[in-house]
Amino acid sequence: MLQSICKKKERLIVGLMSGSSADGIDAALVKVSGSGKSTSIQTIAHDTLRFSGKIRELILKCSHPDTGRVDDICRLNSLLGELFAQAVIHIAKKADYELSQIDLIGSHGQTIHHLPSPEKISGVEVTSTLQIGEPSIIVERTGITTIADFRPRDMAAGGQGAPLVSYVDYLLFSHPEKSRVALNIGGIANITVLPAGSPAEEVLAMDTGPGNILLDQLIYMITGGKNRYDLDGKRASRGKVDQRILERLLEHPFLQKPPPKSTGREDFGEAYLHWIMEMGKGTEWDNLITTLAEFTVRTIVNSLEMFVFPYHEIDELIVSGGGVRNFYIWHRLEESLPQQRMLISDDFSIPSDAKEAVAFAILANETLMGHEGNLPRATGARHRVILGKIIPGKNI
Amino acid sequence: MLQSICKKKERLIVGLMSGSSADGIDAALVKVSGSGKSTSIQTIAHDTLRFSGKIRELILKCSHPDTGRVDDICRLNSLLGELFAQAVIHIAKKADYELSQIDLIGSHGQTIHHLPSPEKISGVEVTSTLQIGEPSIIVERTGITTIADFRPRDMAAGGQGAPLVSYVDYLLFSHPEKSRVALNIGGIANITVLPAGSPAEEVLAMDTGPGNILLDQLIYMITGGKNRYDLDGKRASRGKVDQRILERLLEHPFLQKPPPKSTGREDFGEAYLHWIMEMGKGTEWDNLITTLAEFTVRTIVNSLEMFVFPYHEIDELIVSGGGVRNFYIWHRLEESLPQQRMLISDDFSIPSDAKEAVAFAILANETLMGHEGNLPRATGARHRVILGKIIPGKNI
Repeated sequence: MLQSICKKKERLIVGLMSGSSADGIDAALVKVSGSGKSTSIQTIAHDTLRFSGKIRELILKCSHPDTGRVDDICRLNSLLGELFAQAVIHIAKKADYELSQIDLIGSHGQTIHHLPSPEKISGVEVTSTLQIGEPSIIVERTGITTIADFRPRDMAAGGQGAPLVSYVDYLLFSHPEKSRVALNIGGIANITVLPAGSPAEEVLAMDTGPGNILLDQLIYMITGGKNRYDLDGKRASRGKVDQRILERLLEHPFLQKPPPKSTGREDFGEAYLHWIMEMGKGTEWDNLITTLAEFTVRTIVNSLEMFVFPYHEIDELIVSGGGVRNFYIWHRLEESLPQQRMLISDDFSIPSDAKEAVAFAILANETLMGHEGNLPRATGARHRVILGKIIPGKNI
Repeated sequence: MLQSICKKKERLIVGLMSGSSADGIDAALVKVSGSGKSTSIQTIAHDTLRFSGKIRELILKCSHPDTGRVDDICRLNSLLGELFAQAVIHIAKKADYELSQIDLIGSHGQTIHHLPSPEKISGVEVTSTLQIGEPSIIVERTGITTIADFRPRDMAAGGQGAPLVSYVDYLLFSHPEKSRVALNIGGIANITVLPAGSPAEEVLAMDTGPGNILLDQLIYMITGGKNRYDLDGKRASRGKVDQRILERLLEHPFLQKPPPKSTGREDFGEAYLHWIMEMGKGTEWDNLITTLAEFTVRTIVNSLEMFVFPYHEIDELIVSGGGVRNFYIWHRLEESLPQQRMLISDDFSIPSDAKEAVAFAILANETLMGHEGNLPRATGARHRVILGKIIPGKNI
């Protein structure tokens, strides 16, 4: 079983990602050659299929302890399985491939709950996470062998189940002579530190703080929902940094915490933005926007200066995520990091806004080939493990 | 990957089952040779690990729409994963085997919801089922490759996800010259019809009606919880059938329904028992017990006479389940079926009270070997599929 897919020199793999913001499904069709450190990829097509308002509501309802009922979760698991299957069919069609030409699917699933801190239940200590979107349905509708549900295996080994993308950074970006940092500026910004020639065991990763999460929320709020982000960072480029507010923001306790560390909506969500807006009363919107963009820049630069540069001379930064298109952030990073060359992940065939979907295609390839896919210094796991669950398709 | 396990002539496999009554975990250690129609087995050890009252309550709480919350489900998924792992460790120790000698685990999981009737959610028709007990944790704690969560794949192909044991009946009991029926008398009784030499596609299975469900409930109630069942069917053997009540019971609409058909607590649960007790007011308890035992016998015999004997001459009945130990039921079946030889599943190395745990060990073996494990005429699926999700262990 699985031998015919394993033996191929090149595999066509669809990666599927559906983030905790429950906006929609990111799908990427990737041509993957080799595996492990000899992996090379070419992204053939990618797209986002937005969820309808009704489905997004159902996901958020199922995610919350007060409203997440077992019968709704049971149904939503199947419903999302159907939608993930449709995303595969869509991306294949868009790229003009037949489903029968695709070898493998890697599906992250939709996180509806994540409890990485140990709790005692009936005398047994557990950590837990719940990703849904039934992969059996993806397999039935497409015929394609699917690997799904990557996080629980890392958590079983003592990890936080995140970040998993760091291993993909290691595979694609680490270099025998150049020391690099992979920087992803999504809602939250994170870095993967890749010293020249270091083995997987030594790769460090951490969240640095907010990426676009505060900026996007503010824009959404002040445009009454008309805009979802500051296009090209135009407003940020127009305003001026309010130093008083910025200094206060830089006092956030997360920023001083030593790695490994991760953060999210609980630290930099709506409550935090409201506190900022309270503090920034009377400040022009554009100035507040610029201040938040600068906050993102400074938390990234400070993390590098505190936790990375003292130990490694970094030659290059490879940047991905929506923040890449914010020119204010990009230029300020360039200014602040004169010693480093800044590259965009697109140069490595990873579209900066489809990085996670591409990453789960590559993680599926690693599991298929029997390779471990987590990094202990990124997730905190005790050791490396093969991630995911394999559901055999017609093409085994 | 998986090749070293696949190539073995004999595999040691642990099967794990946790039924919807949420009593505990049945574990069986089985030596399996070959696969498909050449499968032969030897059950080395089996045991039941009862859940504590607290854990049973948590399972029942998580199963109910009004109380099954996403955070509890998330935690319980991990907790049950830990308990399933403990069950594997326990059964290996009991049989004096090292974990490193065991090749594979087949885990059914704990059903907390099952919605096999199609429903439209946001315009998409779905059927759904939810089995929990994180297999990644089983793999981490034992090191053993695990195959879990068998039902969703059959449902994705249009089936009801049940019964899955029928395929195992087919593998182990079907015979080139003898026509057989496998009869399992659990809470509900069911039959798998195995005409001599017929292929998997033609194997029919159905529930026949109550097995021990009504009897056990009645005994529990009238002994104030002291006894859980009628030991050896002693009380049933002592009483007399109340013909008036029996005739009324035999009018139940499920009994006339043509196969494929399945039933459960919704048809023959507490509400139905209360109706019987109301009708039987003034009847001595022993007579009511005998009447219910006779009801089980008659529904089995009637199903055979209506749906099986007109099409196939059956030579042998192979009986399993708790009902095997009820001598009243056994003797009355023998009397009522004089043309058939009655055998007990233990004669085929399937302990009659560990049949399902053994079955999931065998279903895991089939998936490992790339064989389809469902029967379309048993589950209603459109076609045969490879069941389950494979989580690679250290032993791949």
